[in-house]
Amino acid sequence: MAVLTREAKGVFAIAPTPFDEEGAVDFHSLHRLVDFYESVGVTGITLLGQMGEAPKLAHHEATRIVRHVLRRTRLPVVVGVSAPGYAAMRALTGEVMSAGAAGVMVAPPNTLRTDDQIVGYYEGVAAALGDAVPLVVQDYPLSFSVVMSAPVIARISRAVPNCVMLKHEDWPGLEKISALRHLEAEGDMPRLSILCGNGGLFLDFETARGADGAMTGYCFPEMLVDVVGHNAAGRSEESHDIFDAHLPLLRYEQQPGVGLAVRKYVMQRRGLLTSDNQRAPRSVLSSRARSEVDHLLARLARRDSRAKPVA
Amino acid sequence: MAVLTREAKGVFAIAPTPFDEEGAVDFHSLHRLVDFYESVGVTGITLLGQMGEAPKLAHHEATRIVRHVLRRTRLPVVVGVSAPGYAAMRALTGEVMSAGAAGVMVAPPNTLRTDDQIVGYYEGVAAALGDAVPLVVQDYPLSFSVVMSAPVIARISRAVPNCVMLKHEDWPGLEKISALRHLEAEGDMPRLSILCGNGGLFLDFETARGADGAMTGYCFPEMLVDVVGHNAAGRSEESHDIFDAHLPLLRYEQQPGVGLAVRKYVMQRRGLLTSDNQRAPRSVLSSRARSEVDHLLARLARRDSRAKPVA
Amino acid sequence: MAVLTREAKGVFAIAPTPFDEEGAVDFHSLHRLVDFYESVGVTGITLLGQMGEAPKLAHHEATRIVRHVLRRTRLPVVVGVSAPGYAAMRALTGEVMSAGAAGVMVAPPNTLRTDDQIVGYYEGVAAALGDAVPLVVQDYPLSFSVVMSAPVIARISRAVPNCVMLKHEDWPGLEKISALRHLEAEGDMPRLSILCGNGGLFLDFETARGADGAMTGYCFPEMLVDVVGHNAAGRSEESHDIFDAHLPLLRYEQQPGVGLAVRKYVMQRRGLLTSDNQRAPRSVLSSRARSEVDHLLARLARRDSRAKPVA
Amino acid sequence: MAVLTREAKGVFAIAPTPFDEEGAVDFHSLHRLVDFYESVGVTGITLLGQMGEAPKLAHHEATRIVRHVLRRTRLPVVVGVSAPGYAAMRALTGEVMSAGAAGVMVAPPNTLRTDDQIVGYYEGVAAALGDAVPLVVQDYPLSFSVVMSAPVIARISRAVPNCVMLKHEDWPGLEKISALRHLEAEGDMPRLSILCGNGGLFLDFETARGADGAMTGYCFPEMLVDVVGHNAAGRSEESHDIFDAHLPLLRYEQQPGVGLAVRKYVMQRRGLLTSDNQRAPRSVLSSRARSEVDHLLARLARRDSRAKPVA
Repeated sequence: MAVLTREAKGVFAIAPTPFDEEGAVDFHSLHRLVDFYESVGVTGITLLGQMGEAPKLAHHEATRIVRHVLRRTRLPVVVGVSAPGYAAMRALTGEVMSAGAAGVMVAPPNTLRTDDQIVGYYEGVAAALGDAVPLVVQDYPLSFSVVMSAPVIARISRAVPNCVMLKHEDWPGLEKISALRHLEAEGDMPRLSILCGNGGLFLDFETARGADGAMTGYCFPEMLVDVVGHNAAGRSEESHDIFDAHLPLLRYEQQPGVGLAVRKYVMQRRGLLTSDNQRAPRSVLSSRARSEVDHLLARLARRDSRAKPVA
Repeated sequence: MAVLTREAKGVFAIAPTPFDEEGAVDFHSLHRLVDFYESVGVTGITLLGQMGEAPKLAHHEATRIVRHVLRRTRLPVVVGVSAPGYAAMRALTGEVMSAGAAGVMVAPPNTLRTDDQIVGYYEGVAAALGDAVPLVVQDYPLSFSVVMSAPVIARISRAVPNCVMLKHEDWPGLEKISALRHLEAEGDMPRLSILCGNGGLFLDFETARGADGAMTGYCFPEMLVDVVGHNAAGRSEESHDIFDAHLPLLRYEQQPGVGLAVRKYVMQRRGLLTSDNQRAPRSVLSSRARSEVDHLLARLARRDSRAKPVA
Repeated sequence: MAVLTREAKGVFAIAPTPFDEEGAVDFHSLHRLVDFYESVGVTGITLLGQMGEAPKLAHHEATRIVRHVLRRTRLPVVVGVSAPGYAAMRALTGEVMSAGAAGVMVAPPNTLRTDDQIVGYYEGVAAALGDAVPLVVQDYPLSFSVVMSAPVIARISRAVPNCVMLKHEDWPGLEKISALRHLEAEGDMPRLSILCGNGGLFLDFETARGADGAMTGYCFPEMLVDVVGHNAAGRSEESHDIFDAHLPLLRYEQQPGVGLAVRKYVMQRRGLLTSDNQRAPRSVLSSRARSEVDHLLARLARRDSRAKPVA
Repeated sequence: MAVLTREAKGVFAIAPTPFDEEGAVDFHSLHRLVDFYESVGVTGITLLGQMGEAPKLAHHEATRIVRHVLRRTRLPVVVGVSAPGYAAMRALTGEVMSAGAAGVMVAPPNTLRTDDQIVGYYEGVAAALGDAVPLVVQDYPLSFSVVMSAPVIARISRAVPNCVMLKHEDWPGLEKISALRHLEAEGDMPRLSILCGNGGLFLDFETARGADGAMTGYCFPEMLVDVVGHNAAGRSEESHDIFDAHLPLLRYEQQPGVGLAVRKYVMQRRGLLTSDNQRAPRSVLSSRARSEVDHLLARLARRDSRAKPVA
C-alpha cells in the first residue's frame, strides 16, 4: 500500500468523475482512465478534487469510486476530503485510508483570512485526522479566496508533521515556490513535496523553480509528464517546446467554469470517457466552443502526434 | 401532514442542532426544544439551516434529526437541503418530504452573480425536485454573496410555481419587502410568504412593511412571536417595546461567527439544551463574553420576566 | 496645535460632508457641525472618512474642508488620507498636517490578504509619510475585506512607531480589544489608543473591554460621550441605559449603504445640516423609511430628551 | 478631432504610465511610446487605465498626461475616468474631452451586484457626463467583482445612447461575444464596438467570435495588430500562428499583480521606456523572474524577429 511522502515527485493526475448520459457514475470509464494514467507514466492519482465534481457525489458514491480506483492501481492515490466539519472529514478519511489511499487533501474553508486562522484550521484538521494520515494542503486562492503566504505554509508544515505535500495553485505563484525552497534551505521548515495545479499554466517555470511536479487534470497528462521529465533531466528547451505546443489548448481548458466541460470533451474525444456528461448544475460547451477545441486539437496534432484523432 | 403554503405566517423557529459534550447529536435536547417551540406559539420549525450546523452533519444524522422532529410535532417543518449538486439535493429532498416535511429551503451557491444566473439556478432546482415540493428561497447576501433584487425574486416566483416562501435576510432589506409587496399588488408576481431572518434585527419594521413573520433562531423565540402578534393586532408600540427590550441581546447574538455560540449558551442557560457544544471548527465564547451575555440577560429580565434565570 | 497621542480618549466624531441642494460643499453647515461637536464634549473630530463621502470630493474641496474645520476648532482633527498610491497619500498628508491636523488615518487597500502583506503595506505608508506624522490604522473588515488579527496590529505598532491609534471596527470585535490590551500588558506591543467604530453598535461593551472611546459618526454623538463617560466613572448600568435607549435608532443608522442617508436626515432634523443631500451615486431614503426614522426618534425622545424635535 | 464610434476596430493600446527612477512622470518615454504605437498600426490609444497606474496619479498629472498624448497623436484617445463619485468623473471628463479625447471609459464600482444596480449606475454616469460624450463600458469581473450578463450590456446600450464601445474582459468570455452579436442581430440592442482585454489571452478566438479587436496593454502590440488583421483578412491559421508564438510570454505578463512589472520590463528592454519603475505600492520582479522573461523573449525571437534584443 502506497504512502504519500515528502519526496513525492512527478505527476499526480486529478481524475474527473465519469458520468454516463443519465448522470450515474461510469465505472467502466473510470477503469479506462486509471489504466490510461498508468500507461502514460503518472506517479499518482488524485480523486474527489473540486474539479472532479466531488461535491456533487453522494457519500456512498464517493467512497465507491475510491475503492474502485484503489483496486485497479498500485499508484499512490490522494483523496480530497474537504468538508465543513472535522467530523465528516475524519469519517471520510478513515474510510479511504483503510481502503488503501496514500493520503488526503484538504482545502481551507473560504472564511479564513488571517495567518493564525489558517494555521489554526490545519492544526484542527491534524487533530481530527490523527498523525498517521499523510496530508496535502491545497493552496488555491482564486477558488477558495484564502491566501497563504510562504511563512504560513512553513508554520503549517512545522505544526503538522504529517503535512507532507503542498498542492500549489496560487496565482501568481512562481516566487512562492522559490520562497518555500529558500525557507527549507534555511532550516525554517521541513521539506514538502510541491506539486503544481492551476491546470499546469506555469508548469514550464514551476519545475525549474523547484516544484516536484504537477497535480492537475489537464486533458493530456502526457505533456505534464514530459515537462517534469525534461526538467528533471536538464532538458529545459525540450520542456518548453512541448509545453508551448500545448499552451493554447491548456489555456482554453483553464477557463473557470467551462474548463471542466473542455476537459471532459477532449477526454471523450480521446476515447477515455464514454460520455462528457456532468452532473447539474454544470457548464455546457456550445457547438462553437467544441469546434474551437477541435481546432486547437488539430493544430496541436501537428506538433504532438498524441493529439491526433482516435481512429 | 402539513404542507407549506404562500399564506404561511408567524414564526418558524430555526432549531440549532444539539450536541452532547462528545459531539454526538443529542436527541433528548432536540425533543425538549421542539416541545418548547410548540409551547411558545411558533407556527413552524426549520431544520438543517446553515446556523444549525447542518454542513457538519453526516447524511444519516441529518435525516435522522428530521425524522425525530417530524415524529414529535405536527407543526410544519421546513428543511434546508442546499447542496452543490442537484442530485444530492433531490435525494435529501425525497427523504425528508416522504418523512413528512412541509417544504424545503435552498440557498444559492456563492458563485452566482447575474440575474439570469440566479433565476436559472432556481429553475434547475425546481426541475430537479419536481413541482410537488414547496420551495423556500433563502436570500442572505451577507453569508452567500449572492444579491437578489426584488425583480429577480419576482422572476423566480413566476418561473417556479412551487416557490411559496422567501426567507428574507438581505441587509438592508426593508425597501425590498415593500418592493415585493408592490410587485404582488401590481400583479407582477404571485404572493409569497415572506419570513425574515438576520436574527430578527429589523423585525420591528419588517412586519409593518408587509413581512408575514420571522424565520430565525433567536434564543428567545417568544419575543419574535410577540412582535409578529402585536403587529398583526395593530399594537405597534407594544411590538416595539418588547422588541427594543430584546435588542441589546439580539444584536449581541447576531454577530457573525460567534453568534451561534451565544445562542446555544443562552439556550443552555434556559434549560433547553443540555450542552452548548458545537462541532469543530467552531467559535467558542470566552468567559468574558459569557459574563457579558449574563449581564444582558439580567438587564433583559427586568423588562421581560421570561429572561429570568431558570431555578 | 493638537497632536494625536497614544493616550487619546473619548469620542472623535466623524463628520459627514455637508452638501447643499446643488451638491456644493456647505461650509455654513460644516461650521455649525463643528460648534455642535464641541458643545457636546467630543474630544476630537475626524474628517474625510469613507462615510464622510471623502471619495466624492475633488482634492481642492477636501483640503478646503480640512482647513475650514481647523480654523474653527482647537480640538485634535484626524484626517482620512487613504489613497491607491503612496505619492497621493503623502501629498494630502503634507497639506493637512501643515494646516494643523493632529494625525492621519489610513485604511488598507482591499487587495491585502496575508499578515505580511498588511504589515508591509503600513511599513510602506510610514516610509512615505515620514515618522513625524501620527498615524491611525483603520481596521474595518466588513468594508475593506482586509482582516487584521491582533498579532498583526501588534506587529504594525512595533514596526511603525508613529502609529498611535487603532480605529477598531472589526465585527465581531470584542475579543480583539481584550487580545490587544493583553498583548500590551505582556509587553508585546506599545500602547495604542483604541477608538471604536461600526456606528457604535458594541460601544457599551467595547469600553468595558478596554477601548478608549469611539470614533464614529452616529447622529447623536452625545450618547457616545455619555457611554464613554459613564464607563470611565464606573457607572456601568447608566452606560447601558443610555446606550440601550439609542440602540434601535443606532441599529437603523448602521445599515450599509442607506446608513449615511439616515444619519444626514437626522442631523438635518436636528438643525445641524441645512440639507441632507449626498453626492451621487447615493442611497436615498424612501418616505416610508423617513417615517420609520421619525418613529424611532419619537420613541427615543421619551428616554432621551435630546431627541425631541427642534422647535 | 477623433470621436469614438460604434464602428471602431483594430487595436487600442493601453499605455502604461512611464515614471523615471524618482517616480516622476517621464514625458519623454510617453512621447516615444505614442510614436511607437502609431508606427505599429494601432488604431487608438487608451490612457489612465487601471493597469496604467492611473489611481496613483494626482489629478494634475493625469490631465497633463492626456494633453501631452493628444498633442502628439491624431489617433483617437480613450481616457479612463472611473471615480467613486459622478462629480469627479464629470470634472475629469470635461477636461479631457475639451482637450480632444475621443471618449471616456468607466468601470463599475465593486459594490454593484444586481442587473438593475449595474444598469442604474451607467444611467447615472450618462446623466452626469451628458449625451455628447462617447462612453466605453469596462467589463472586467476578475478585477472589479461586477458581473454583467449579455442582456445587461444590451440594456445599458439601449438606455445610454452614447455608449458606443465595450471593453470586454470577462473570463471566460467567448460565449458572451457571441451572445452580444446575436442580440444585435435580433435587433435587441444597437451595435457596440467590442474590444477585448484580459491581456489578449483569448484574442485568437475573440476576433473570430465577432470582436472588433483588442484594447489591452500587451508589451508587443504588433502581435495584437497582426491577429486582428489576419482575422479580418480571413487568414485564420496565420492569426493563430503569431498568437501562439506570443502566448507563453503573454500568459506570463497576464499574471495579476506582477503583470505590470513584466510589461514595463519588456517595454524597457525594447527601448520604449527609459525606466520600468512603478509608483509604490507596487510589485517588483525578482532577478529570477527577469531571467524567465528574458528566456521567453529569446524563445519568442526565434518565431517573431521583432522580439530580438534592441542593438
